[in-house]
Amino acid sequence: MAEQDKAVADLAEQVEQVVLGEDGKPLSKKALKKLEKEQEKKRRQEERLAREAAERAAREAAEPDVAVGMYGRAPLNMSQTRTDTVWTEVKDLSEAMVGQTVNVQARIQDSRLTGGRMCFLVLREHAATVQALVQADDVAVSRKMVRFADSVPAESIVSVTAEVVRPVETVKSCTVGSVELRVSKLFVTSEVVRQLPFSIEDASRSEEDCEANPALARVALDTRLDGRVVDLRTTPNNAIFKLQHAVCQLFREYLVRQGATEIHSPKIISTASEGGSNVFQITYFKRHAYLAQSPQLYKQACIAADFGKVFEIAPVFRAEDSNTYRHMTEYVGLDLECAFREHYHEVMYMIGEMFVYIFRGLEERWAHELAAVRRQYPSEPLKFDDKPLRLEYKDAVALLRGAGVEIGDFDDLSTPQERLLGELVRKEHGTDFFMLDKFPLAVRPFYTMPDPTDGNYSNSYDFFLRGQEIMSGAQRIHDPALLKERIRAFGIDAAPLEDYIRAFEYACPPHAGGGVGLERVVMFYLGIPNIRLASLFPRDPKRVDP
Amino acid sequence: MAEQDKAVADLAEQVEQVVLGEDGKPLSKKALKKLEKEQEKKRRQEERLAREAAERAAREAAEPDVAVGMYGRAPLNMSQTRTDTVWTEVKDLSEAMVGQTVNVQARIQDSRLTGGRMCFLVLREHAATVQALVQADDVAVSRKMVRFADSVPAESIVSVTAEVVRPVETVKSCTVGSVELRVSKLFVTSEVVRQLPFSIEDASRSEEDCEANPALARVALDTRLDGRVVDLRTTPNNAIFKLQHAVCQLFREYLVRQGATEIHSPKIISTASEGGSNVFQITYFKRHAYLAQSPQLYKQACIAADFGKVFEIAPVFRAEDSNTYRHMTEYVGLDLECAFREHYHEVMYMIGEMFVYIFRGLEERWAHELAAVRRQYPSEPLKFDDKPLRLEYKDAVALLRGAGVEIGDFDDLSTPQERLLGELVRKEHGTDFFMLDKFPLAVRPFYTMPDPTDGNYSNSYDFFLRGQEIMSGAQRIHDPALLKERIRAFGIDAAPLEDYIRAFEYACPPHAGGGVGLERVVMFYLGIPNIRLASLFPRDPKRVDP
Repeated sequence: MAEQDKAVADLAEQVEQVVLGEDGKPLSKKALKKLEKEQEKKRRQEERLAREAAERAAREAAEPDVAVGMYGRAPLNMSQTRTDTVWTEVKDLSEAMVGQTVNVQARIQDSRLTGGRMCFLVLREHAATVQALVQADDVAVSRKMVRFADSVPAESIVSVTAEVVRPVETVKSCTVGSVELRVSKLFVTSEVVRQLPFSIEDASRSEEDCEANPALARVALDTRLDGRVVDLRTTPNNAIFKLQHAVCQLFREYLVRQGATEIHSPKIISTASEGGSNVFQITYFKRHAYLAQSPQLYKQACIAADFGKVFEIAPVFRAEDSNTYRHMTEYVGLDLECAFREHYHEVMYMIGEMFVYIFRGLEERWAHELAAVRRQYPSEPLKFDDKPLRLEYKDAVALLRGAGVEIGDFDDLSTPQERLLGELVRKEHGTDFFMLDKFPLAVRPFYTMPDPTDGNYSNSYDFFLRGQEIMSGAQRIHDPALLKERIRAFGIDAAPLEDYIRAFEYACPPHAGGGVGLERVVMFYLGIPNIRLASLFPRDPKRVDP
Repeated sequence: MAEQDKAVADLAEQVEQVVLGEDGKPLSKKALKKLEKEQEKKRRQEERLAREAAERAAREAAEPDVAVGMYGRAPLNMSQTRTDTVWTEVKDLSEAMVGQTVNVQARIQDSRLTGGRMCFLVLREHAATVQALVQADDVAVSRKMVRFADSVPAESIVSVTAEVVRPVETVKSCTVGSVELRVSKLFVTSEVVRQLPFSIEDASRSEEDCEANPALARVALDTRLDGRVVDLRTTPNNAIFKLQHAVCQLFREYLVRQGATEIHSPKIISTASEGGSNVFQITYFKRHAYLAQSPQLYKQACIAADFGKVFEIAPVFRAEDSNTYRHMTEYVGLDLECAFREHYHEVMYMIGEMFVYIFRGLEERWAHELAAVRRQYPSEPLKFDDKPLRLEYKDAVALLRGAGVEIGDFDDLSTPQERLLGELVRKEHGTDFFMLDKFPLAVRPFYTMPDPTDGNYSNSYDFFLRGQEIMSGAQRIHDPALLKERIRAFGIDAAPLEDYIRAFEYACPPHAGGGVGLERVVMFYLGIPNIRLASLFPRDPKRVDP
């Protein structure tokens, strides 16, 4: 549009412009006049405020600053120097330190300016918070420094020198409430330069709190996961991943004491060996390969190689287009496999004991983290016995039928049936954890050993936690002839399984094992509502970011 | 060919047939006659032998068998029963048990029949071997049972009841030499039904032994790897993977004591984020995704999420078409990342100490396994100091130049240069392990923090073991502005790195870390000649099986 045309168009628009009132109707002449006056008044007021702000800024800039060099933005840490500075962790601050000067590195979780001379900060380091006060005293701390402290965006990291003092009253909103910090130096070491996707406070709130006060912001799951780096900073999330770590550590501790060897089996495999569907395909140089759905065949190969007892903690991949609260396309498998002497119950009971060791260990050694998670996701402590309950599949079917469920002897359990079974078992046996043994052969993988007395059943088991399956396992077929027979019966192509079968042709001890989903154990143990919350950076059919 | 035609052709062949002597010339009539006689004699002899064998078999079959029910093939173990049988491990057999009856499950490593009434077996359970004797006494053990024992294929698994006795002389060829077993029951529980690809003995031999006696069979690397299930049964291989397990355990032990959290980062990633080349592409539902080349970006995200110190043990994938003794397409990464207060040396020295902890732990707690590996792969114990040596890159360049190597100040080290450097450092400082600090900036990844005083260098380091790199690490750039600047300088597309950069825009403490190749540590520590021998089921551009 040429400049002249634009001027004409603007004019036309002006002529047509009619001011509408709040009711949507054109204003009267009188009302119009009143509106103009109000607008003029507002304009003048804004001008005055701007003028005053500029004057204040000039005055403040001119103010003598007693705190020069005691606050500001620190230069980027490129490891310029290594001093002997002693740093105190926020969690370690205590009344015993009152009167001492400490150095602390922490995030500013919150700041509040009071009357221009005082700025209250909440400093957070990992899960610990403490109140800090920057107070102008015209001796060491200036009003400029107070304003600077208040201007630092929340979640920025500061390094602070401060005196530990007794607060007027216990600071209930902080984990360290018996002391506060009187700040004498404050430097920003890493500054937030982008709008946070949500506040730490909003992300830490329980469902109960949200329901009690609908005005409070709720952070949706996808928002959390999109801004996962910030989300993971909340105390409950820090605790969830400490507990995930704890489950792995306890799993290993127990198995290492049993003489098991940790293995690392390949994730890139040549053929979609375990049944075929649900595997991701990779472009592997000039051919295709696949991502392992489990270390099943390899951990068995290790048994055939006389490793005795093996375990592995590693990612497993499932190309399953399931968009549920408990499925992911990549998760962490805790796998184990053990040769036995006579009976697969040697292994099954050992695994049962292992879980008791894990549950007990979480309660005893990670009570602090459990409590932190329960503040956001309330759950009852797990009920379990030292010697875990074993039920047979047919007992489960009877229990369900007793509760009015129609189910065939050899039908697989649906998820709602599993949940109901969990409730029934809890009611009858008072436990949230049990082993369900002797599954129907037809609902288990081809390599499952049939029951020796009734071919409809098998030497296989699932373990349940709060009515949800956390582990599946079995005695495996170690006899190549029977294995081939079962492969034929399943109508599976034996060719890709040639290496697998061969391992047994070289002779292999009888063995049993199982596979545990790490995130499922964490999720059901803690009673958190979605498996994605138990995975650092979850993957599902729709999510591969961040 | 019709039947008649075939008959004609056969006839023609017969007519043309001329018997040739060993010198290739036709035989004389006399010689031909002699040959015919010899052949006739041979035929009759064979007939006689066959007749005698048949008679012997019939006689043996008719022999009264005092050992009926005491030997044979056990029914397939389907966990039929659970008895109170006490099983003794071969390694636990000792002179204190002489006179006792024990039950043992083991493989028959070797068998030797002597005079029809005695069969010597070498029984192997894991790394322990013992001699067992099946001797016909016409009371409890029959000649049939002796012959049966001898007929069991090597590597089959048997369950044996036997008396522990003192051998005539110490059995030097077995690990348990002070006792032997007098077998009264012998059942095959898993039988070898396929020709072994090589013998355990051949696969356990040292290069030195092979050179000393060229008549001995040598098992080529590819043969080993194709028959890996059998190969892994050798005592040195069992020990290599116990030591691999030990490295992981020591790595974790040290880091857990430092307060680090174990993490599990996703292996499926949306973009080829770290530079772009050398990544495997996956078909991910209706799009593409990639396999993570390292947990680099995710472990840093955990630092930005206030995890403080993190580590991960997980597979990493490199689509590199390198067919060398030290490259694989999939290996196990021991990764760690730590926030620090002031200087990346806080982290670097901690990692140095961690390696000393690992090396010391291997020596002290896994001496037995180390010795087992050294029998096949002789190596000197590692020389290292409690406080590991730190050299700067420019010192390394000076050392190399002193040895006549032409190298620019900011050139990267080639593999032969690294080896030479290792030798020079060993000569000068008496250590096989050192930290090389302050690499030229240009040869490091884009996220490496430049040196604060000389922009040609960087705050990065490699750790060397016996002249080979086992870890690469650095202080990372935690400042988004500098990070973007470096990404531009490298000419990398910033778009796929958006999530990564954002983590720092939400503020992040300074941090440093490193990535260790598990198989490399095992390989160089043990001085074994190929990285594939330190991987259970290695993957390279040409191998995805078994």
